[in-house]
Amino acid sequence: MSKFSVNILGCGSAVPTAMHQPSCQVVDFRDRLMMIDCGEGAQTMMRRMKLKFSRLCEVFVSHMHGDHCFGLPGLLSTMALHEKGGHITLHLPAEGLGVMRNYISYFCRDTPFDIEYRPIPPSGGLIYEDHALSVEAFPLYHRLPCTGFIFREKPKQPHLRGDVLEFFKVPLSMRGAIKQGADFTTDDGVVVPNSRFVLPPEPSVSYAYCSDTMMDSRVAKAVEGVDVLYHEATYSNDMATQAREYGHSTALQAAKIAKMAGVKKLIIGHYSKRITNVQTLVDEAKKEFDMVIPANEGLKIDLL
Amino acid sequence: MSKFSVNILGCGSAVPTAMHQPSCQVVDFRDRLMMIDCGEGAQTMMRRMKLKFSRLCEVFVSHMHGDHCFGLPGLLSTMALHEKGGHITLHLPAEGLGVMRNYISYFCRDTPFDIEYRPIPPSGGLIYEDHALSVEAFPLYHRLPCTGFIFREKPKQPHLRGDVLEFFKVPLSMRGAIKQGADFTTDDGVVVPNSRFVLPPEPSVSYAYCSDTMMDSRVAKAVEGVDVLYHEATYSNDMATQAREYGHSTALQAAKIAKMAGVKKLIIGHYSKRITNVQTLVDEAKKEFDMVIPANEGLKIDLL
Repeated sequence: MSKFSVNILGCGSAVPTAMHQPSCQVVDFRDRLMMIDCGEGAQTMMRRMKLKFSRLCEVFVSHMHGDHCFGLPGLLSTMALHEKGGHITLHLPAEGLGVMRNYISYFCRDTPFDIEYRPIPPSGGLIYEDHALSVEAFPLYHRLPCTGFIFREKPKQPHLRGDVLEFFKVPLSMRGAIKQGADFTTDDGVVVPNSRFVLPPEPSVSYAYCSDTMMDSRVAKAVEGVDVLYHEATYSNDMATQAREYGHSTALQAAKIAKMAGVKKLIIGHYSKRITNVQTLVDEAKKEFDMVIPANEGLKIDLL
Repeated sequence: MSKFSVNILGCGSAVPTAMHQPSCQVVDFRDRLMMIDCGEGAQTMMRRMKLKFSRLCEVFVSHMHGDHCFGLPGLLSTMALHEKGGHITLHLPAEGLGVMRNYISYFCRDTPFDIEYRPIPPSGGLIYEDHALSVEAFPLYHRLPCTGFIFREKPKQPHLRGDVLEFFKVPLSMRGAIKQGADFTTDDGVVVPNSRFVLPPEPSVSYAYCSDTMMDSRVAKAVEGVDVLYHEATYSNDMATQAREYGHSTALQAAKIAKMAGVKKLIIGHYSKRITNVQTLVDEAKKEFDMVIPANEGLKIDLL
C-alpha cells in the first residue's frame, strides 16, 4: 500500500521530435494517478505505458506553454469515449484557466465525469490534500508565470510491536490510541511510555517537479530536503547563454540546485531538440551531484 | 509542374491508437501544401513524412470534433519555432471559429507568420481559389455541422504544335492568343482554324474529401465526376446500425457513394478502433466498387 512512483511520458522540450515527446509525467500514488503537465500525445503515451485513464484523478499544469498542456483536450475527449465516470480536477495556472476551460468546455460537452477547474496562484501554496498526500505549488522563474509542484506523503503512523502489547496485556480497544502516541497504564498503575510499544514509521517520501525554470536559488530553497527532484536541464553547458535568455537551465545548473537543496536523487529532462546525446548532460550534472537519473519516455521511477 | 498528390497523415477515428492517428491529410499541389483536418499528432506525422512546414499555406477543417482539429494549436506553435514566415489561412467551420481562434491566439501570440481565419459556411461554396486550383466546401451529414472539400485543378491550356506553327510561319507574338483559342490568318488571307495548332491539354484532376458523414445521396451528387474520392468508412457491414446512429458510414456505403458519383478511385479511411483488419472493409467495398484504396499512415497517393 505504499506505492509511490513517477512515470515519464514525455521529457522533450517545445517540439515533439522523433526522440522525445513534450512534457508529461504521471505520479502513481497508491493507485491514484496524478498527471503533471500534459504535452501533445500524452494520451497515446498513457496507453503505451498501460496507465489506466480510469485511475487519473488530478492534472497539474505548470504553465501555459503549449508543450505543457496541448495534450489535455485530447486526453479528456478520449477519456469521455472510454466512459470513465467520477471526477477529474484540472489545476491550471490562474491566468490561463479561462481560455483552457472555454476550449475544453466546447469540445467536451457531455463527459461522463465532472471536470473541476482549480486555479493555481502564481505565488504557489497548498493546492491539493488528502489523508495521505499533499501537493504544494511554488514559483519557478520562466518567461511567464510558472509553478513547480511538491508531492509530499503525509507522516505515517508508527508500527505497533505486537510482542510488547501482548506482554503488557494492552486491550484491543486501546491500540488505536497507542498508535496515535498515548502511553499505557497497567492495572498496577505503572505508566509504560508509548515508545515501548512502537517502532518508527516508514519515512514519508517527497517528490518535486521543476519545469520550466532558469536556475534560481529560490527554487533550491523551495524544494529543500525533498527526496527526489525533477529539474529541467534543457541545455548543455555550451548553451548556458540560451538557457538564461529563454528562461531555462543547463544540466550543471540543475545539479547545483539539487546539491543546494540537499535532495537524494535528481531526475533531469526537458531536453532541447539540439541535445542528441543525453549522456553529455548527465556527465555535466555529475560534476556537481552524483545521483542523476536522465528522464526518458517509458521510464518508471519508484520513489519508495 | 503538375504535381498533385494526397498524403495520409492519419486515418483513424476518434481516438489515436497504436495502429492509427486521427484524421489528417495533406494535399500537395505543385509544392504548395494544403492540410485537410488536423488531428492530434499531425505535426509529428508531417515531420515523419518529410512534408515541410514552410510549404504549408492552407488548412481546412471539416468539423469541430477534436479528432479533426486538436493538432492545430501544436502544429502552429511548432511552425512558429521554425520561424516559418509568410501567411497561413485556417478555414474553420463558422460555428467553431471563435473558440479555436481564442485558443490559438492565446498560445501563438508572436508567430513569425500571419494567421488568417476564414469561416466555412455550413452550406458550403467556393472557399479557396488561385490561378490553378479551387477548393469548394459542401455539406456532409454528421452529428454537427460538417463539410467535405473538393480540390479541382482549373482547366489547363492546350499544348501548341511547334511543327504546325512553323509551317504557317505564325509569329511568336501571336502564340499566346493561339494558346487562348484564336484562329490564325495567313498573309494570303487564309483562316487556319485554332484546332490545327493545338493538342488537347492534360485533363484537370479533382479530389474530394468526405469525413465524417453518414451515407447520403446528396454527397454523391456533390462529388459527382471527381477523379478520386476519399470517403470515410468507419465501420464494417455488421456495424451498420452504429454507423447510422453516430453519423458515420460503412465501407459498403462508401463504395455505393463512389459508384453513384461515378468517380475513378475511392480511398477509404477513418477506421473505427474496432476495425482490426482493414482488408475486411476493402472486401466489403469491392462488392460495389472496384478501385478501392485503403488509407494508411504514410501513404502518398498521386492524383495525376
